[in-house]
Amino acid sequence: MTPARPGPGGRSGKPRPRPSSAPSRRAAPPGAAAARSRRGAAGAAPGRTKPASAQGLGGEQVEGRRAVRELLAAGRRRVRAVWVSDELPASPLLADIGDLAARDRVPVRSVSRGRLAAMARTDAPQGVIAEADALPEADLDELATGAPGAPPFLLLLDGVTDPHNLGALIRTADGAGVTGVVLPRHRAVHVTPTVAKAAAGAIEHVPLALVAGLPAALRDLKARGVWVVGLDAGGDTSLFDLSLATEPVALVVGAEGTGLSRLARARCDLVVAVPQAGQLRSLNVSVAGALACYEVARRRAG
Amino acid sequence: MTPARPGPGGRSGKPRPRPSSAPSRRAAPPGAAAARSRRGAAGAAPGRTKPASAQGLGGEQVEGRRAVRELLAAGRRRVRAVWVSDELPASPLLADIGDLAARDRVPVRSVSRGRLAAMARTDAPQGVIAEADALPEADLDELATGAPGAPPFLLLLDGVTDPHNLGALIRTADGAGVTGVVLPRHRAVHVTPTVAKAAAGAIEHVPLALVAGLPAALRDLKARGVWVVGLDAGGDTSLFDLSLATEPVALVVGAEGTGLSRLARARCDLVVAVPQAGQLRSLNVSVAGALACYEVARRRAG
Repeated sequence: MTPARPGPGGRSGKPRPRPSSAPSRRAAPPGAAAARSRRGAAGAAPGRTKPASAQGLGGEQVEGRRAVRELLAAGRRRVRAVWVSDELPASPLLADIGDLAARDRVPVRSVSRGRLAAMARTDAPQGVIAEADALPEADLDELATGAPGAPPFLLLLDGVTDPHNLGALIRTADGAGVTGVVLPRHRAVHVTPTVAKAAAGAIEHVPLALVAGLPAALRDLKARGVWVVGLDAGGDTSLFDLSLATEPVALVVGAEGTGLSRLARARCDLVVAVPQAGQLRSLNVSVAGALACYEVARRRAG
Repeated sequence: MTPARPGPGGRSGKPRPRPSSAPSRRAAPPGAAAARSRRGAAGAAPGRTKPASAQGLGGEQVEGRRAVRELLAAGRRRVRAVWVSDELPASPLLADIGDLAARDRVPVRSVSRGRLAAMARTDAPQGVIAEADALPEADLDELATGAPGAPPFLLLLDGVTDPHNLGALIRTADGAGVTGVVLPRHRAVHVTPTVAKAAAGAIEHVPLALVAGLPAALRDLKARGVWVVGLDAGGDTSLFDLSLATEPVALVVGAEGTGLSRLARARCDLVVAVPQAGQLRSLNVSVAGALACYEVARRRAG
């Protein structure tokens, strides 16, 4: 349970953007900030971060103690403000949030529990909500290249729609050492507050890329020497018989219920299934994806 | 995605109780049924199933298409009635529910979407709710004995409180071939409708036992030759270095956030951790538990 190291850039290696020299002391509530951002991001952070839009990654509203702590600790994007319920008891995590916010001169506002609940877009914001610039998008080409000592280990999500599953998968990706998560751009929503909370801060550390089409991305990855392994209940090889070590690899996980799309499946070098001993013959997609990610992690470590 | 085989008893091997010969044609809505059950279960199924109480397993209200289908298919407990939204489009799963209900003469009521929503106790009942007798409790002694060809493979949950996590763990237990899940009795609620839905029907197949105290249960299991392996972020051995094959084993998973209790931890033969490559150093408990269950499954299969 060692906390993530604060400071420059997290896993992406990018330098942490400096907070603007005169952050607004009169922070608007989350809804207003999002609306302003949609109109053209007056006062948005310079450079790196694309303006928020329906087609972007999202992630502007972050709720929950761990998610907000990681948002501040990673320092990858400008945090406009943090709202804390005035009834929240003191805790090491809350003290950490206060210290990190002070370091970056992020205004912290104490609000009533009722006001916080009204701002919240998850079931349980745990008394803390932050508003930040949208998540920066990673580039698929860079992810496909990898870094010295870290060959590409990508996780592509082919239509996972449940926000809890999406968040859980990003969280597991961090633990397993995934070097990038790839999502289709043409979804109404990507990183909602519920996704951010379920990811418990992993959205700040795991590079996330959006692609126009997943099958085209798979074709590109294969052309660059990345092994594409699909995960599907109907796969003909056991996940545990996968013969991969440190080769560049992309795991493709399909949608809840329906599994891999026909086109994505056709682009896979191999389709594997998690062995099933029970009566149901199916696992939750975030569990199946976790088993696949850790299968690659295990082989890389061994 | 082969559906579970309907018919006698699921994994428990117990014969399927016959539906009572004259099921009530005037089924009360779930809320009323639950209230009746709490008052003393007038008309409860005879024998095997203990009457519902705050200390029992629960599971009386089952929501969601897959969960209701498995409830009917497993046939382990009497189903009082099934309510289906009159706006629900036809589907193979829904047809299956109708066939299975007809087989067991369970009344199926078509209700408005609004009435179904008012009955629901989960966020998304998917248009189907069933009311059944409480889940039968498995016996820890029997679970510790195992069956020929199936040495004990138990999963003990030491304070997992999030219903989604509990449901997901039971679902994964089915897939990994866990022979029994053990929960502490002194919790206000065990198998809520949210747990039942997240388990996607696995509560009908995986034997569930309640124990007065988890540390005492661990002592008993050890005395009977069961290896007790704890899972904790602070464990000193990698989960992937576990040296177990077909020995009787009990995995102990701790609570969200706090991990294993001190007493439970002290009773473990070994405490293992899932290797962490990322910044967060922690996984969702249902993911960590899934990795541990499948680690045992893999070793048993190999």
